[in-house]
Amino acid sequence: MSNDSEASAYAKAGVDIAAGQHATELMKRAVQSTYTPQVLAGLGNFGGLFDVSALKAMEVPVLVASTDGVGTKMKVAARLERWDTIGYDIVNHCINDILVQGARPLFFLDYVASSKLHPEQIATIVGGIAAACRTAGCALLGGETAEMPGVYEPDEIDLVGTVIGVVDRPQLIDGSRIRAGDAIVALPSSGPHTNGYTLIRSVLDNLDWNELNPELGTTIGAALLAPHRSYLADVQHLLSLGVDIRGLAHITGGGIVDNLPRILPDGVGAVIQRGTWPELPVFDLIQRIGAISAADMFHAFNMGVGMLVIVPESDVPVVQGTIETSYVIGRITVGAKKVYIDG
Amino acid sequence: MSNDSEASAYAKAGVDIAAGQHATELMKRAVQSTYTPQVLAGLGNFGGLFDVSALKAMEVPVLVASTDGVGTKMKVAARLERWDTIGYDIVNHCINDILVQGARPLFFLDYVASSKLHPEQIATIVGGIAAACRTAGCALLGGETAEMPGVYEPDEIDLVGTVIGVVDRPQLIDGSRIRAGDAIVALPSSGPHTNGYTLIRSVLDNLDWNELNPELGTTIGAALLAPHRSYLADVQHLLSLGVDIRGLAHITGGGIVDNLPRILPDGVGAVIQRGTWPELPVFDLIQRIGAISAADMFHAFNMGVGMLVIVPESDVPVVQGTIETSYVIGRITVGAKKVYIDG
Repeated sequence: MSNDSEASAYAKAGVDIAAGQHATELMKRAVQSTYTPQVLAGLGNFGGLFDVSALKAMEVPVLVASTDGVGTKMKVAARLERWDTIGYDIVNHCINDILVQGARPLFFLDYVASSKLHPEQIATIVGGIAAACRTAGCALLGGETAEMPGVYEPDEIDLVGTVIGVVDRPQLIDGSRIRAGDAIVALPSSGPHTNGYTLIRSVLDNLDWNELNPELGTTIGAALLAPHRSYLADVQHLLSLGVDIRGLAHITGGGIVDNLPRILPDGVGAVIQRGTWPELPVFDLIQRIGAISAADMFHAFNMGVGMLVIVPESDVPVVQGTIETSYVIGRITVGAKKVYIDG
Repeated sequence: MSNDSEASAYAKAGVDIAAGQHATELMKRAVQSTYTPQVLAGLGNFGGLFDVSALKAMEVPVLVASTDGVGTKMKVAARLERWDTIGYDIVNHCINDILVQGARPLFFLDYVASSKLHPEQIATIVGGIAAACRTAGCALLGGETAEMPGVYEPDEIDLVGTVIGVVDRPQLIDGSRIRAGDAIVALPSSGPHTNGYTLIRSVLDNLDWNELNPELGTTIGAALLAPHRSYLADVQHLLSLGVDIRGLAHITGGGIVDNLPRILPDGVGAVIQRGTWPELPVFDLIQRIGAISAADMFHAFNMGVGMLVIVPESDVPVVQGTIETSYVIGRITVGAKKVYIDG
């Protein structure tokens, strides 16, 4: 008896080990393309290994970690049978979630599960993850694929990611220095990013997602699948110029009204002025067809704002001179951690 | 318009934000009970923060990371409506996966998703995760719950975990020092741990899982749900005594025959002698009812062996003197990275 034995009983029970191994082979090259010199490749037989000797030069190295899923944007990808961009969504979502604390990503791990593994599909998804990781200088250190018949609906996939980053504690961004009078600068989103897709699908379900929509200038499918933007390069550029970033808010589920208060210290609030940034045609379409109130729209969607950067008024010129597309959309006020949307 | 606005359109689309918030509240206390002094609590608004200043004292600090899911053991929990132990499975599985490289866990992140969130159920699962983390001295640093109607089958849940640990590179265990003649010591499993459940369910589906089974000495349900054991304390104890652990293999999917070769250097193989350890009655039951060959059983299941510890023969007495229940089940041989099961 040796390890050459076929797992025939396993196959009969509906688990295709060979399909999993094929996907693993297809993914290997994409994964290795993300390896930074810190990855101890070839040693990680069970867990991935990452040399963090560089952290010894920091004053107080702090790891920042975040796990998230793509949510039901996966169902949009499934409807359109487009699997090449969804990897960007999960990587960039996670990177933005640690970026708001001033952290840069070190490495990423992914989890892809479905009722039935289709090796080429999984490899396409992981190819997108790897490409987004390379752009961010972040190693794709590990991952797992799981075939779970009876847990997932047929042809449905869930995609989960975890990012680990680092920040030196003196450079930690936590919002505590935000003051009344500070400017709120918006960096635009590419679309709904990874939030609000259950609502979006219920509203737009009956439309043709593949025909050109003049209002959008593209198809509904393309507008809905636009990958979650990463704000890593923009924020790192601002920090390298010495911009005094006092707070960063990643606008995800709950929108500006829920996410901005998370970083506000006691005694301040915010006023946002509608009309100061383009709210994106896809949100107009969703609001009109779904007959959704403006308040509900702002609670469910980013409304064209992917990241908020809070800086003192004096730093606005350098922010706007550095990031071509950015908008001053409001001010920090004296208040009770609430956000008022004006207009 | 303020953040008090109700997300009524969202609720109509089938996403219950209030249920998610309730679950979050229920989990908060359990999560906080895991916090070690390294956790910078209250600052982590988007990502969790973990102070790793202690790593500066290491020669070459290496982070070791692993992501995994519980797999279809979730369906066993669902059938039995028992959600209090499945958290131990995911935490201990992940911890063992980095332990085999000599790493101790620093922190853990979880992801729980279903078609519909039941706050008490999720809180029970996370309570188990937190308890397993506390036992391991590992902070539950972050997590995510996701409600994805249409992706998950009704009443099904997926549970994914990520662990980050650390090892100083000189103490890294990678199997490279394994030599012919070394002893293979087995630490027993509690049952199938988190592998082979699709096969198990197909074989045992028609039996009563709640009545006492004399062969098992318990119910089938209890035997199948027995939590994945953590070998952290045992291995740390051996290391603290100076035992020369040359390799550790976590016996997961693929069994001894697939997992032991992953750590074998060129030029050696292994011979395992059946009968030297108890193979657990639950595997006898599965094999008999499923009419499964021994080869297939050894390929799908751990067969009562959760962790293999490879040590020089001279260290066997201290291993067996330290860990009450351990078995010398075989020897490393000259060979080609293959495992032969004898008997």
